[in-house]
Amino acid sequence: MAKLRVHCFSVSLDGYGAGPDQSIDHPLGIGGEQLHKWMFGTRTFNQLFGGGNGSTGIDDAFARRGFDGIGAWILGRNMFGPVRGPWPDESWKGWWGDNPPYHTPVFVLTHHPRAPIAMEGGTTFHFVTDGISSALDQAKAAAGGKDVRVGGGAATIRQYLQAGLVDEMHVAVSPVPLGRGEPLFKDIDLPKLGYATTEHLPTEAATHFVLAKQ
Amino acid sequence: MAKLRVHCFSVSLDGYGAGPDQSIDHPLGIGGEQLHKWMFGTRTFNQLFGGGNGSTGIDDAFARRGFDGIGAWILGRNMFGPVRGPWPDESWKGWWGDNPPYHTPVFVLTHHPRAPIAMEGGTTFHFVTDGISSALDQAKAAAGGKDVRVGGGAATIRQYLQAGLVDEMHVAVSPVPLGRGEPLFKDIDLPKLGYATTEHLPTEAATHFVLAKQ
Repeated sequence: MAKLRVHCFSVSLDGYGAGPDQSIDHPLGIGGEQLHKWMFGTRTFNQLFGGGNGSTGIDDAFARRGFDGIGAWILGRNMFGPVRGPWPDESWKGWWGDNPPYHTPVFVLTHHPRAPIAMEGGTTFHFVTDGISSALDQAKAAAGGKDVRVGGGAATIRQYLQAGLVDEMHVAVSPVPLGRGEPLFKDIDLPKLGYATTEHLPTEAATHFVLAKQ
Repeated sequence: MAKLRVHCFSVSLDGYGAGPDQSIDHPLGIGGEQLHKWMFGTRTFNQLFGGGNGSTGIDDAFARRGFDGIGAWILGRNMFGPVRGPWPDESWKGWWGDNPPYHTPVFVLTHHPRAPIAMEGGTTFHFVTDGISSALDQAKAAAGGKDVRVGGGAATIRQYLQAGLVDEMHVAVSPVPLGRGEPLFKDIDLPKLGYATTEHLPTEAATHFVLAKQ
């Protein structure tokens, strides 16, 4: 059966999944890009964003795994962009340019309806206004038997965790404190929700944990 | 100048420094002992508690460092014992038996006065009722030029961090989720308080971070 998976969700050593004050200049919140350093050097990341080379090894294996067997994505609206409230026009098409790194249908959670946007490279953004379960149903239907990945941000992952809908979750703890931002696990009782650690692989750049439903 | 240091403070991957519901049967809170697994196998821990052998290596080096150059300790009352409110009698003398692993003066923060207790092996428990700064002054005076270690628990460390009094802090992130308990870094803005990561050494058992004032 198709799974709902979280991958490459980076948190600071004090548990924040993004910095505070997200804006057009700070898509990951202030200081948030430090959390993802472990990924920037990997071959997977460099191939995705056209940079060519990059490291192989544990960090890269985790980055790559996040794309293997994924047939659709779900994103929270803040991960899609900095626009809040009703869409003022059709101009915002995500942070990623004309050819986003998804290459699948992508379901964006929002309270404000908007027509789908077909991008280059196979990515189509669909806007879902009737909640996380509906988004998951639509994503599974669109994924053609493959798994669905929740990209983030923290608030969206927390909703799916709290509802017990995440099957598997890879978290990378980066060696930096952020101090403020989006706390990933606040009020999420992982053991009570049935999650346990199934993998623990540290590297010099990050500590990788996989949590899965038992 | 003598420093105030935190060592071997273990947290779960979701940021809890102890489990919930501490009691005489669960000194580390429910599930809390899992956080310290990385330490149980080390030579330092086994020598302290009479077990003999144990591993050397990174985990052991961090365990040992927590005792090097320490001339006094500070403990929160809950780390000293499960008794709450006024001391009913003089019977509780800590979790550690007649010969506690401190071998220095130990200053216990409490709202309720009590006479000092001299234990075997050089440990004397002193009870401080006038706050964390007073405890630190007394500990530094008693340490004879050596450093002072804050043992914990989470609430006590948070108070010293928030007051900017901790010079150096070693945190070990264990690969288990706890779900509930004492969150170490909640509302502690480490970068704003001047802390940055100075060491990051992962092992199979834990990820070790050292934070220090810059």
